Amino acid sequence: MIFSPAISRLIEAFRRLPGIGPKTAQRLAFYVLSMKKEEVAEIAGALLEAKKRVRQCSRCFNLTEEELCPICRDPRRDAGLLCVVQEARDIYVIEKTGQYKGLYFVLHGALSPLEGIGPEELKIPVLLEQLRKGEVKEVIIATNPNAEGDATAFYIAQSAKPLDVKVMRIGFGLPAGGDLEYADELTMSRALEARREIL
Amino acid sequence: MIFSPAISRLIEAFRRLPGIGPKTAQRLAFYVLSMKKEEVAEIAGALLEAKKRVRQCSRCFNLTEEELCPICRDPRRDAGLLCVVQEARDIYVIEKTGQYKGLYFVLHGALSPLEGIGPEELKIPVLLEQLRKGEVKEVIIATNPNAEGDATAFYIAQSAKPLDVKVMRIGFGLPAGGDLEYADELTMSRALEARREIL
Repeated sequence: MIFSPAISRLIEAFRRLPGIGPKTAQRLAFYVLSMKKEEVAEIAGALLEAKKRVRQCSRCFNLTEEELCPICRDPRRDAGLLCVVQEARDIYVIEKTGQYKGLYFVLHGALSPLEGIGPEELKIPVLLEQLRKGEVKEVIIATNPNAEGDATAFYIAQSAKPLDVKVMRIGFGLPAGGDLEYADELTMSRALEARREIL
Repeated sequence: MIFSPAISRLIEAFRRLPGIGPKTAQRLAFYVLSMKKEEVAEIAGALLEAKKRVRQCSRCFNLTEEELCPICRDPRRDAGLLCVVQEARDIYVIEKTGQYKGLYFVLHGALSPLEGIGPEELKIPVLLEQLRKGEVKEVIIATNPNAEGDATAFYIAQSAKPLDVKVMRIGFGLPAGGDLEYADELTMSRALEARREIL
């Protein structure tokens, strides 16, 4: 049984999105066909408009519709503190804590020699150039807790060594609310390494 | 932390789709922003084209891009056998068995007095009219195994009683490959009712 060409094309379109397998794509396609024409037009319009309007902040490479992103434009943010993340979406995770008042820097990836991603493929040269200006006093590297993220953190720390900047890595350990029983051995091992005196 | 207007609109657009919560919508939106412009245009185009081209088969109300759907157009299908389903997507589930050679009829819903869905809101009058023509000898009702699907099956069976048509319901019981331990009590109770002699 094959689907008609327009339905097949729609299923294929959904399959391009991450985490959407053949069954979900089919379900979404049939749902779209049951929606009102105006609703479908709104989704299509939202896709095209977002792609057209959204670009990278010229300072931190966060996503924005203007020259500078809302965080870089905010004069209350501490320009002496810079948090380095792999992806723009990571900023929202940190912002949700309400705890961080510095600026950000989005690398748009992590070092991965196997995939041919070196410092030049990321925004690392731009980051180092910003650090050389001397305004940033502390860098917090919040790349992912895996081999690529750790290698990226290490590379940035080494490159920033000659500069007068404190380079920190976010803390690792047990996730809040988690159950010790379900912690994998790497998380547990990092939690042990990161132990602190209670009193 | 709020997203820029175009990103918010895109996240909202994804949230209109079934099974997509706020986190998934956010993830999809950021992914779309990382895609090539042409890829995003392809998805938007697929949505608009599918909605524009796809309509209901004039005979069975399956989705099609022509007057009749490929199944109704196929002269090898047995026009004496009619399988009634709630949604067009259910046809693909049955077709995948490769076992069914009759035609279909899509009700586009199930009876639900609570939601104000009576026979007139579905395609039931059209179905009964087709049955009155006398070509169909057997109807297999494959509506969902829940209260609405069962009520719909019962209503159709009663309405077709004066006509010379055998009205059957698909079988219920344990799903193939399943483990008895995980069967819920309703499935198990229906499996007991549907017991058959082995030899």
